[in-house]
Amino acid sequence: MTQPPQIRFGVIGCADIARKLSRAISLSPNASLHAVGSRSLDKAKAFAKANGFPDGAKVYASYEAVLDDPDVDAVYVPLPTSLHVRWAVIAAKKGKHVLLEKPVALSALKFDEIVEACESSGVQLMDGTMWMHHPRTLAIKEFLSDKQRFGQLKSIHTVFTFGADPDFLENDIRVKPDLDALGSLGDEGWYCVRAILFANNYELPKTVLASREPVLNKAGVILSCGASLFWEDGRVATFYCSFLSNLTMDITAVGTKGTLHVHDFIIPYEEKKASFYAASESGFDDLVTRWGSEPTKHVIENDLPQEALMVSEFSRLVAGIKFNNSKPEKKWPTISRKTQLILDAVKASIDKGFEPIQIQE
Amino acid sequence: MTQPPQIRFGVIGCADIARKLSRAISLSPNASLHAVGSRSLDKAKAFAKANGFPDGAKVYASYEAVLDDPDVDAVYVPLPTSLHVRWAVIAAKKGKHVLLEKPVALSALKFDEIVEACESSGVQLMDGTMWMHHPRTLAIKEFLSDKQRFGQLKSIHTVFTFGADPDFLENDIRVKPDLDALGSLGDEGWYCVRAILFANNYELPKTVLASREPVLNKAGVILSCGASLFWEDGRVATFYCSFLSNLTMDITAVGTKGTLHVHDFIIPYEEKKASFYAASESGFDDLVTRWGSEPTKHVIENDLPQEALMVSEFSRLVAGIKFNNSKPEKKWPTISRKTQLILDAVKASIDKGFEPIQIQE
Repeated sequence: MTQPPQIRFGVIGCADIARKLSRAISLSPNASLHAVGSRSLDKAKAFAKANGFPDGAKVYASYEAVLDDPDVDAVYVPLPTSLHVRWAVIAAKKGKHVLLEKPVALSALKFDEIVEACESSGVQLMDGTMWMHHPRTLAIKEFLSDKQRFGQLKSIHTVFTFGADPDFLENDIRVKPDLDALGSLGDEGWYCVRAILFANNYELPKTVLASREPVLNKAGVILSCGASLFWEDGRVATFYCSFLSNLTMDITAVGTKGTLHVHDFIIPYEEKKASFYAASESGFDDLVTRWGSEPTKHVIENDLPQEALMVSEFSRLVAGIKFNNSKPEKKWPTISRKTQLILDAVKASIDKGFEPIQIQE
Repeated sequence: MTQPPQIRFGVIGCADIARKLSRAISLSPNASLHAVGSRSLDKAKAFAKANGFPDGAKVYASYEAVLDDPDVDAVYVPLPTSLHVRWAVIAAKKGKHVLLEKPVALSALKFDEIVEACESSGVQLMDGTMWMHHPRTLAIKEFLSDKQRFGQLKSIHTVFTFGADPDFLENDIRVKPDLDALGSLGDEGWYCVRAILFANNYELPKTVLASREPVLNKAGVILSCGASLFWEDGRVATFYCSFLSNLTMDITAVGTKGTLHVHDFIIPYEEKKASFYAASESGFDDLVTRWGSEPTKHVIENDLPQEALMVSEFSRLVAGIKFNNSKPEKKWPTISRKTQLILDAVKASIDKGFEPIQIQE
């Protein structure tokens, strides 16, 4: 058996999330850690040492140096959202494939600059939404697509909240208007919206309406918010995201014939297996005193953690382009853009005093 | 041990739900089936025979006859909502305590006529929301009230849907504008709203906003709808109810320190035990690849089904009034009225083209 082609990664920035991704790159059979760059050489060195970079890995005192390294195939961008356009566009122009943290940009319009640069250079663009790559997600999709077991989707509610500590609420980039200006909506709402679109086969809603009483910090960054999404055929989605509540990550999807519950959809409780609950054609006994059957727990095992599966899939696409003349897979930037478009609409609805926002692609 | 005082029930009407309640009255140690009345004597006879009425039970060819029977202490009213005011008021005026099916009326204003009649006559009024009387509900309340384990409630989402068959959608009283004009909102949304109020200690929201794209039948009765409720301090509630989706009954409540999941809150999966899932101060491992701990399943056993516990509690209050000079417990009509008030607001929001409705007690 030949080893799969290795895609060599450069990491720009030493954010906390880059630790998890560096491990994922190490674990991925078709990817390797090649370089890391930080504005501080010491920081880059310490990061490489602490995060499993091999002895020969390059350590740079700037992001540019990583992008100028001809041996770097792909770059992982964990920088604050406000820096995404700048660095993703430079990376694309230098022919580097781009694995970009979410939210991908501060608006869909800004994201389009990244998409255009990647398309011009023929490089792959993918966002860092790890749960998309878990085999459970495929099993969930199969259930949601099953006309007998689930029928047509009618309602979906998603939640992502966690309880940020005082230091986070004061100092984290996700509460800073000049860094991650979308706050909880960008950081957490991103996942809620993605799950809603995923369950709707990425069909955009007609109308988006932000929930009243969002919580903003003094700088106007969202700490907690929600929204409702409406499709013309009566499908409804609601979500809630917050930095101010206990860690919760839920999908509750109700179809004409089935019901789905997932309680850990973004990061599974365990690394090597994950579950969801499915119910079909549920009903009661004759006197309506108990259910005929309970929802079924489905457990899916995975050999690699979902973040390594994401790196593998990204690297597989990159290898196709590099070695087999394949074209970049447009699915990934397309769903990134749709997710961003809904975030934009929620933000616009809040800014306009909770006006409904019509969605136009 | 002396037997507890027996409260003698009269049932007016032979609706399907009256079968379940008749069994509950039989099972309840302080209640007994004394009479049933229907517009058809044959129907009343068949009902009494099929539903465990004792040999000496009275069978009447009218509702009035039940209410005129001096041995009837309390009356169970399973009639269509449009008939509630008429029959509950007559019952109260005749000194009968009233166990009233939900929704209690077609509006809070109409319900007030019932409340006034019951107060004037000094009889107990309680609505038929059975899950309120399950010991699990008390355990859930303890969790939600625990400042350490749950903290402050921030967001709650409730769902009650079931898939009605074509006959139901054509002929059931719940799709008829002259019988149960609130449709799914009255039949199912009632439970969703009650659970939301329960979790908020019955503090009314400031604003109620119906979801767009509700589904109505040709007669204008709601088959599917939802709403968002907002409190000034940022608390948010959403719910969804429908006759057009798979059976689902969910509470998802997120607090500053804890999370609650209930998947069968209205009718437990099993008759003799019920569960809920509680998580407190949830978090991740250092690399954010898995959770530190999973939610805990709490199982509560109950000797009697919740509908019998409801009958017992109602009968206990009635016995207090009858034998011990107690006053009627105002808690029950108070929370009935608040639930109805929110239903009214959802309906008004739909009727006004999804305008937000300010709530005034």
